[in-house]
Amino acid sequence: MYRHQCQERVRYGQTDQMGYLYYGQYALLYEIGRTEAIRALGMPYKYMENELGIVMPVLKLEIRYLKPAFYDELLTIHTVVKERPTKLIRFEHEIVNESGEVINRGAVTLCFYHVQTQRMVRIPEAFDRLMEPYFRERE
Amino acid sequence: MYRHQCQERVRYGQTDQMGYLYYGQYALLYEIGRTEAIRALGMPYKYMENELGIVMPVLKLEIRYLKPAFYDELLTIHTVVKERPTKLIRFEHEIVNESGEVINRGAVTLCFYHVQTQRMVRIPEAFDRLMEPYFRERE
Amino acid sequence: MYRHQCQERVRYGQTDQMGYLYYGQYALLYEIGRTEAIRALGMPYKYMENELGIVMPVLKLEIRYLKPAFYDELLTIHTVVKERPTKLIRFEHEIVNESGEVINRGAVTLCFYHVQTQRMVRIPEAFDRLMEPYFRERE
Amino acid sequence: MYRHQCQERVRYGQTDQMGYLYYGQYALLYEIGRTEAIRALGMPYKYMENELGIVMPVLKLEIRYLKPAFYDELLTIHTVVKERPTKLIRFEHEIVNESGEVINRGAVTLCFYHVQTQRMVRIPEAFDRLMEPYFRERE
Repeated sequence: MYRHQCQERVRYGQTDQMGYLYYGQYALLYEIGRTEAIRALGMPYKYMENELGIVMPVLKLEIRYLKPAFYDELLTIHTVVKERPTKLIRFEHEIVNESGEVINRGAVTLCFYHVQTQRMVRIPEAFDRLMEPYFRERE
Repeated sequence: MYRHQCQERVRYGQTDQMGYLYYGQYALLYEIGRTEAIRALGMPYKYMENELGIVMPVLKLEIRYLKPAFYDELLTIHTVVKERPTKLIRFEHEIVNESGEVINRGAVTLCFYHVQTQRMVRIPEAFDRLMEPYFRERE
Repeated sequence: MYRHQCQERVRYGQTDQMGYLYYGQYALLYEIGRTEAIRALGMPYKYMENELGIVMPVLKLEIRYLKPAFYDELLTIHTVVKERPTKLIRFEHEIVNESGEVINRGAVTLCFYHVQTQRMVRIPEAFDRLMEPYFRERE
Repeated sequence: MYRHQCQERVRYGQTDQMGYLYYGQYALLYEIGRTEAIRALGMPYKYMENELGIVMPVLKLEIRYLKPAFYDELLTIHTVVKERPTKLIRFEHEIVNESGEVINRGAVTLCFYHVQTQRMVRIPEAFDRLMEPYFRERE
């Protein structure tokens, strides 16, 4: 299992007239969560696109909104990869507010797509090597 | 069952550098789908907020991305309410591109929340009366 | 002078907790205004990118916010090109609400950039030919 | 003169298919710049809304796009208040990329608006006291 966490503040332009973080803005928080998670592993997503020619389109998004997030709150985005990725990679997220409450849970499933050949491919080796240590079975 | 459809064009600012409509933008398309669906029924969502004091926070969002949407495509947003809403309302969506392909499927579940009493409530009567004819059992 | 107008509705996700259309959202309205203006002329912007290899980066944006726009308002975006474009093109916009009030005024200046040669170029001929009739001096 | 700087990363969802940070996203960067500037002064904008009942609508936005910003770049947002605010406050911004280039310059003018009385007011005293030391004339 690979875990990571980072923080992001709710901006005015991301709230709606209910005074909540708009429900469509969580996709961006999840993007930040998974991007910073793989950067921390040593593989900026930018590298995957620029050097490996691989993009990662999203196949599936699931979100449960437990409590609202409000303007100016500093949210903690928890990101977990529970299964070693092969053709797909699934990031699970929990968002925690300043009071320590889990306000949101969700998951994003992405694939690896080779731009030049226009085909879905397996996880790039360089990325798999960075991931692998987190999925070793305990003996 | 209540069905509705409307159209919306993909704008430059909604694409990402992959050249796709960004995965987080579908939440706005779904908002447009359900808003226009209930407006067509005779109940602008604005009326619910301003006159009834009811807001409709989103509880759950599920999206499956089947194919990308591209810049300037005129997308058709299909919206269906399959079950007569009581405490919750669930809108199911399909997005169809100009070639007639279903490129995206999803669903949004919302509740009814009375702002003044700060409580979840049942569907407002005025809204239920408009919905009811679409859920009569055939005899 | 070339004039065009189109309409666009304020969506929930575009409001902020003040209950106003967020000030950063006007750039998208202006994009819609200029895109529909040149589509009406017979030149979808998509064509310029895909067929002519020309993109149009924005150089300058000016906006004056006279009155707020509110949720669900159907705004009319007026777009005017006052001077025949050569190296630059300047779109001026006025946004009018449902009560007929001018609530917003602004302008966007863009250039023409040839992607392959990575150079700024003059307005593409095909586009200029469509524009030219609107800038003939009266005799 | 009051100066502040902070950093913000360009996210995938903020790029467009040109591969640039979308021109409408700079308004959010400027929001972040001015919010963090006044937080550093000791006055979170949230406090102004919640405790003083003052909101700050934007009256004017000017942006010059000198060079594009790209995905994943860590941008530095420089914020300056040059004149002591009275009825209006004007924030000037420069955005600098990782190579140290100024890629964007702009300014945002806002007013102070008292929600309850629905009137424009002078800068709240508490905010003015924090600002004042930065605008003392040198003797």
